Amino acid sequence: MKKIAIDAMGGENAPKAIIDGVLKVKSELPDTRFILFGDKEEIRKLLPKDQINDQLEVVPTTEVINDEDEPVRAIRRKKDSSMVVAANYVKEGKADALFSLGNTGALLACGIFIIGRIKGIARPGLMPTLPAQNSDRGYNIIDVGANAKSKPEYILEWAQMASYYAKKIRGVENPKVALLNNGAEDDKGDELHQEAYKLLKESDLNFIGNIEGNELMTGKADVVATDGFSGNIALKSIEGMSSVLLHSLKDSLLNNGLMTKVGALLIKNAVSDLRSKYDTAKHGGAVLMGVNAPVVKTHGRSNERPIYYTLKQIDKILDEKLIDEFKQNFSNKKEN
Amino acid sequence: MKKIAIDAMGGENAPKAIIDGVLKVKSELPDTRFILFGDKEEIRKLLPKDQINDQLEVVPTTEVINDEDEPVRAIRRKKDSSMVVAANYVKEGKADALFSLGNTGALLACGIFIIGRIKGIARPGLMPTLPAQNSDRGYNIIDVGANAKSKPEYILEWAQMASYYAKKIRGVENPKVALLNNGAEDDKGDELHQEAYKLLKESDLNFIGNIEGNELMTGKADVVATDGFSGNIALKSIEGMSSVLLHSLKDSLLNNGLMTKVGALLIKNAVSDLRSKYDTAKHGGAVLMGVNAPVVKTHGRSNERPIYYTLKQIDKILDEKLIDEFKQNFSNKKEN
Repeated sequence: MKKIAIDAMGGENAPKAIIDGVLKVKSELPDTRFILFGDKEEIRKLLPKDQINDQLEVVPTTEVINDEDEPVRAIRRKKDSSMVVAANYVKEGKADALFSLGNTGALLACGIFIIGRIKGIARPGLMPTLPAQNSDRGYNIIDVGANAKSKPEYILEWAQMASYYAKKIRGVENPKVALLNNGAEDDKGDELHQEAYKLLKESDLNFIGNIEGNELMTGKADVVATDGFSGNIALKSIEGMSSVLLHSLKDSLLNNGLMTKVGALLIKNAVSDLRSKYDTAKHGGAVLMGVNAPVVKTHGRSNERPIYYTLKQIDKILDEKLIDEFKQNFSNKKEN
Repeated sequence: MKKIAIDAMGGENAPKAIIDGVLKVKSELPDTRFILFGDKEEIRKLLPKDQINDQLEVVPTTEVINDEDEPVRAIRRKKDSSMVVAANYVKEGKADALFSLGNTGALLACGIFIIGRIKGIARPGLMPTLPAQNSDRGYNIIDVGANAKSKPEYILEWAQMASYYAKKIRGVENPKVALLNNGAEDDKGDELHQEAYKLLKESDLNFIGNIEGNELMTGKADVVATDGFSGNIALKSIEGMSSVLLHSLKDSLLNNGLMTKVGALLIKNAVSDLRSKYDTAKHGGAVLMGVNAPVVKTHGRSNERPIYYTLKQIDKILDEKLIDEFKQNFSNKKEN
């Protein structure tokens, strides 16, 4: 039986959203066991007793890591936090994957320092799947901020892992891999990106060259490799712009008189089309690639829906034995 | 009389859009002379003879720098191109500012190598004014790609110039300056950004700390300082996301049946509200800050409207004697 360790206390809607998500997905994944870590009383209030069985277990913990906590210090000091105890379950082989909606930095630290990186991987990288204009399967971008400082070899390894993920988990045949850069030409960028370009070109990846920020969400590339700093800026700029635009549109629709409000009702289908096209939830959470088990994060403000999809995503990662594959492929490499 | 040298051959709609923009703005700026550089015949066809007078001059040139041209090589080889001849006019004091819609790299090269950087400025930086959710005056971001490689001192100088611009040209009192970084906390980022943070904090700027990609377009900061690589990624990600979303919304409105189309008509006011709120044209073009004259670029696909606004922006930069101010403030600094 596959076993997923779930931090039930992370995120704005914890533990309710997490419990709801687990209850929603449970019957679809009969070969998977969900282990919830968190406040026993709070969880019991929300979880009908008859739901606790072979497929659903609760491990009581007494502490919670908050968004304000300094990540590395938090995982050292809050030994009995839901996140840390869950991570230790994975480390000790009592669970196969770790899922949290909590403090991203702390979760990365749990992945890197408790669960540990795969031998041969220099630096784990954080990889979400984002929606794209011309592809229902979206695209992967890695690293979006696990590393403030990157080297060309890291970028190559991230691209290799993400390409494999795109193939196995998203079903993209021969994924097109691009490098996020400040121009399209081969020689663009600083030394880091020029070197990364060379490594990607020499690799056996399906490398299609540089991609610029404005092409990210078109779906031109299935996998975008980037240094962790720029990747973080790109991801947040995209999220921020789309949030600002959609809020402003909503404001405009509500503040332009009655006929506009009628119009807003009439375009409901179109808006829900748009929503489903750019629905980030359906692709699951962001995966910390390069550690000894799937470590997956979704937005802290998620409700049960993204949690449902992320649990299915984790289950698929376990089915496809992604980590074993990485261990095999990278363990023979020299350590950097 | 102020004199603006205008590359009439750059951009998709050249020379028509440029001539139209000049004719539109001319009467509002009676103390300014517009010098158009480009193909004599093409310009004459579009420009009524009686318009050529003290306020409007045409300087015939025989070559054009294309978007495909390698910038530095192009400005060396195409000596009689509209852009290079215009730049030389500025260098020789026959014009006070340079404006083009053409090849951005070539225009930056004209600014840096022909017009020359201001003594005391280590590296000129490219600075657009972008629309913001909570401010009609938008915000400035610098550098968005003139430099692939940045140093902390460059970022400080860019912030200083942009802050002065925000005050004098955009009328923002005590502009709030932020550093684009991968997190909000003081110690975020790589060495470059940690060092830049310190320099900004020690400066006499109104520094409000780090800003993340998702906060850029909220208007939280009046001036965003960034290394040129990340700034380029952020700018293009924002542009790309907004273009993809607006196109997708349009598609959805057209492909969801008759009632949706009726709805689309009814929300026209709301959409035009939104358009005017996020209208990039009204803020003018991107300024190469740190060279001996205003060098300004607008989008290659611009029609007369952005050109009109950019010419007014350039005129204001000349009125406010921005360059003299920079020369005075930076010339006493040690060269890096």
